[in-house]
Amino acid sequence: MEGIDRCAGSMMKSVNELPIGIFDSGVGGLTVYRALHNRLPNEHFVYLGDTARVPYGTKSLATVERYAIENSQFLDSVGIKMLVVACNTASALALPKIRERIGIDVVGVIGPGARKAVEMTKDKAQPRIGVIATEATVASNAYANAIQRASKTAEIVQAACPLFVPLAEENWLAEPETFSIAAKHLKTIVDFRADALVLGCTHYPILHDVIQQTVGAHVKLIDSGEAAAEEVEQLLMAKGLASPKMVSGNRTLCDDLDHFYVTDAAERFARVAERFLGSQPSKLEAIEVFGVDELKRN
Amino acid sequence: MEGIDRCAGSMMKSVNELPIGIFDSGVGGLTVYRALHNRLPNEHFVYLGDTARVPYGTKSLATVERYAIENSQFLDSVGIKMLVVACNTASALALPKIRERIGIDVVGVIGPGARKAVEMTKDKAQPRIGVIATEATVASNAYANAIQRASKTAEIVQAACPLFVPLAEENWLAEPETFSIAAKHLKTIVDFRADALVLGCTHYPILHDVIQQTVGAHVKLIDSGEAAAEEVEQLLMAKGLASPKMVSGNRTLCDDLDHFYVTDAAERFARVAERFLGSQPSKLEAIEVFGVDELKRN
Repeated sequence: MEGIDRCAGSMMKSVNELPIGIFDSGVGGLTVYRALHNRLPNEHFVYLGDTARVPYGTKSLATVERYAIENSQFLDSVGIKMLVVACNTASALALPKIRERIGIDVVGVIGPGARKAVEMTKDKAQPRIGVIATEATVASNAYANAIQRASKTAEIVQAACPLFVPLAEENWLAEPETFSIAAKHLKTIVDFRADALVLGCTHYPILHDVIQQTVGAHVKLIDSGEAAAEEVEQLLMAKGLASPKMVSGNRTLCDDLDHFYVTDAAERFARVAERFLGSQPSKLEAIEVFGVDELKRN
Repeated sequence: MEGIDRCAGSMMKSVNELPIGIFDSGVGGLTVYRALHNRLPNEHFVYLGDTARVPYGTKSLATVERYAIENSQFLDSVGIKMLVVACNTASALALPKIRERIGIDVVGVIGPGARKAVEMTKDKAQPRIGVIATEATVASNAYANAIQRASKTAEIVQAACPLFVPLAEENWLAEPETFSIAAKHLKTIVDFRADALVLGCTHYPILHDVIQQTVGAHVKLIDSGEAAAEEVEQLLMAKGLASPKMVSGNRTLCDDLDHFYVTDAAERFARVAERFLGSQPSKLEAIEVFGVDELKRN
């Protein structure tokens, strides 16, 4: 909260000028940061990548909840006006606990992605919606439940795509092996003849073109990060929390208005950020994870 | 130390009857457990898989050291006569710190793997030794340094194979994509015309056949886990620490003489253990990671 006093004189202005917080288990959430940055050029962002404890997709409910709460409390302590949980696994498992713990609006990626898929297929009487995600997200049924809440008639098929994350991180975006693996991972989706396919893991938008070619051009791909950015924009308007002033000059991804924190291995994060975003963060800082209840800055 | 008193009356006998401790960042170390179990049927083992914090291969030196010390202290507190660090990354980065902290013999996998590679190529005046490992292990140069200590004339080439771990965990052992990825990952090794190739990551023995076919039958593959098991056997003899009595009946992998701990997601561990070993642990227990200095049992 250095330099920003949420309770002082012109409180409204102060809160509106606060950044939007984003956390993810690691680098994958940078696709969500990109979506937010592109849609909301007036806002600035604080991103926390929990690189010391990535991945979340193979961890238990209790552990994911604990990590998610620690990350949220750290960002809250830095001073943010809204929190975006970019990590699909944390969105699927930990949103209620996060909302119990912090007093600001929290937006996950599951609800927005599910609602967007239903909206994009509203011309169908019985929309056929595919979901691809990590093992943990698929097993949680979070997307299937959220889609069913938004549409009584939707038919849903889910598939885990475990090799997509390492392929994205290695930047194997056009290799024949990637297309061949995609054909295997997406076979149930293709057989299902999906109308729309939710990319239910932050890494998957990196493989957008491979996935689109594999499932066919007629299938609408839903980027949950982009859907979340739309809902964040609506929420900022509804709550009167949008940043009051235009940022001067052109903003670029990773410029010095946005602050990035990682819990470990900052160099690797910067390298993968360059692969994902085309540039490295101007402001990147490593923080330490201190046990169960504390995340302290160095 | 429940039930076992290392300082009481017939001390020699008590210590010899203690299990050998093994820790790894996750499931990969099960290949080292298998090697130890096969070579030392009289011994029993306590295995800790740090599944809450896997993988180590993308984390920093300080973090890997901290995790390794916590794991070692937990196993030491359970009561073990010797510690095997199955994880290549932890062996590369954290052995000195572990040895500072605990008072029993500690065997890593890097030294044994390196010495075995030199031994297996001793008919060559200038042995050509390849090493494949994670990014972090390659960057540490731990294998290259250890090989140079064992042979003044060896020529060494290292390569990171980042997609091998997810392929092994998904059990894609005979898929055409696996062979195709192996051809790419191992191209520098093949071009180098290696005489021997060290499998410098615990997961790689699972892909032994793919790797052997890719590099050619004339290349000697060195399983660092098997090499470590040989050195553990020699050390047990030299120190008079071998188990004094024959275990009655046939031992099988994962039988109830061996105790497995994980820091998270025990079900997933059991599932991958079945893929790697053909059976699930009889005794598998989840423990919690409590901050910097403590690993407590539930």
